[in-house]
Amino acid sequence: MPVLSVCMNPALDREFYINNFSVDKLHRLDPEYSRMSPGGKAINVAIDLASFRIKSIVTGFIGGYVGDIVLSELREISNLITTNFVHIEGETRENIVIIDEVNHTITEINSSGPRIPIEDIEHFLRRYKLIVPSADAVVISGSISQGIPAQIYGDLTKIAKKYGKKVFWETRDNILRESLKIDSPCILRPDFRKEQVIFGRELNSEQDYIDAGKELIRYGVKMAVLSYKIDYDIVVTSDGVWFIRPLVEVDHSHLLGTGDTYMAAMIYKYFETENLIEIAKFGYAAALAKTWYRAKVPPKYEDIEKALTMFKIERVE
Amino acid sequence: MPVLSVCMNPALDREFYINNFSVDKLHRLDPEYSRMSPGGKAINVAIDLASFRIKSIVTGFIGGYVGDIVLSELREISNLITTNFVHIEGETRENIVIIDEVNHTITEINSSGPRIPIEDIEHFLRRYKLIVPSADAVVISGSISQGIPAQIYGDLTKIAKKYGKKVFWETRDNILRESLKIDSPCILRPDFRKEQVIFGRELNSEQDYIDAGKELIRYGVKMAVLSYKIDYDIVVTSDGVWFIRPLVEVDHSHLLGTGDTYMAAMIYKYFETENLIEIAKFGYAAALAKTWYRAKVPPKYEDIEKALTMFKIERVE
Repeated sequence: MPVLSVCMNPALDREFYINNFSVDKLHRLDPEYSRMSPGGKAINVAIDLASFRIKSIVTGFIGGYVGDIVLSELREISNLITTNFVHIEGETRENIVIIDEVNHTITEINSSGPRIPIEDIEHFLRRYKLIVPSADAVVISGSISQGIPAQIYGDLTKIAKKYGKKVFWETRDNILRESLKIDSPCILRPDFRKEQVIFGRELNSEQDYIDAGKELIRYGVKMAVLSYKIDYDIVVTSDGVWFIRPLVEVDHSHLLGTGDTYMAAMIYKYFETENLIEIAKFGYAAALAKTWYRAKVPPKYEDIEKALTMFKIERVE
Repeated sequence: MPVLSVCMNPALDREFYINNFSVDKLHRLDPEYSRMSPGGKAINVAIDLASFRIKSIVTGFIGGYVGDIVLSELREISNLITTNFVHIEGETRENIVIIDEVNHTITEINSSGPRIPIEDIEHFLRRYKLIVPSADAVVISGSISQGIPAQIYGDLTKIAKKYGKKVFWETRDNILRESLKIDSPCILRPDFRKEQVIFGRELNSEQDYIDAGKELIRYGVKMAVLSYKIDYDIVVTSDGVWFIRPLVEVDHSHLLGTGDTYMAAMIYKYFETENLIEIAKFGYAAALAKTWYRAKVPPKYEDIEKALTMFKIERVE
């Protein structure tokens, strides 16, 4: 019962732990303070799904030295993850994160990734259509490489829905607004890390977020989960609006990968129940439990259960 | 007629050009603003030697994904470079440089490199002894990985001298002062980039440099070339002391790799003449010509010839 995880722009995630990191300085780093792991949001989701003992097939585009590293590291992580990438000539990107646990900062350098030639996109689509029927759910998450049309999330979702598959998205506004013109997912988490924007409009007040969530529902999304001021969440369905807030302090230098854990946990819960609010709650608990680890690693199940009691969910509309 | 180039701590050099780079921010980077190249001082020397059409065999320790990238990139640069590394379990280091051309900052993350187990050091020594007889000169340059004794430059030099080979060194004081207790090179350029120290003493005045140079000569070094206030050089042999100064302005943001170009050019000249001052002059000219390029690339021969007229050398003692 695999989940098809679509990673259009995989990455090698590099974590560097440097205390008192500052600009214009030479920092020396011992190897034990750095970590490399396969990344790109949909790959992170697959890794988190494996920790829930859920199989996944990861597809997308991969290439070059960095692509080889991503594939071999991914193979080492879990045999529940199968890869089925289109191999490209370009070099897969790296995402560098510099974590300073003294000053509680996260400095990130995200590469945009290689340009994808149109023949490789065609090749990918043929392959995607072959895999979709055997998947139980489809998650499409993260950025897209140059050359890939922004509406691709919509196109892929339309194909998946033809086969009756539930689709989950997490990505940024430039992709969302083009893709929603084609089709919409069951559950959507906009990626607000870089900017808090929906349909080109900046979100500031709580009401802005609620309005944006409602607009996403009008596009056919079943549940929109909007991260608000980092720790909070605003959940919108066709039934109402909920507000989730933590009852414990959250370490902001431990946020790496929380969004992907959130998504994986929602997919896991979706296989148990169709109750959207239960799904959102479990996702939030998993993300909260993830913040108890500094590295990008899936949280333990008992920590998620513990976290289920450490936040408050309140219906506001 | 190859040069044996000993690189005890190779690296993959990564350059990222990010304007307005700042802490606790997410920066996006297009692939054209990043560059990777094989590094570590002795590898840079081998690349510069290749531009003089001189063959070299590069040896040392290499490992992991990063080591594989260093090797394949090195193979692409020139077929005059042969590699003969001991493959280790650890991961070869990376040196990351973030260059902000708006705020004129350089932020660096230098990894210390893997720890080398004693069996790998033994393996390296056996291999070194096999290669030395077929080399025409030996250059040992750069830092050493953890686990390697600081006197290694001396040990390797003693072996090379048994076979009548001329040896060239460029490295920092912690290695120099331990290694000189064992044996001394023909030509030595202390690496003053991080600190201006010889035998644990900080050098400030011109006289400090001259005295340090004379002390190196007493240890058996034939010529010590000491970089003084970046652009100048103080050259000491058993015959006297010379002062080299440029007649043109030097762009300090173009200094990356100049020391390695200097060394390669001296080795090249040494194959033509035993006149130490002629060797130093040619090295200086090559380093000066290198500063006309921003990237870490060998200068053109005609630029070195041009540079030969652009400095003044004066005997001071």
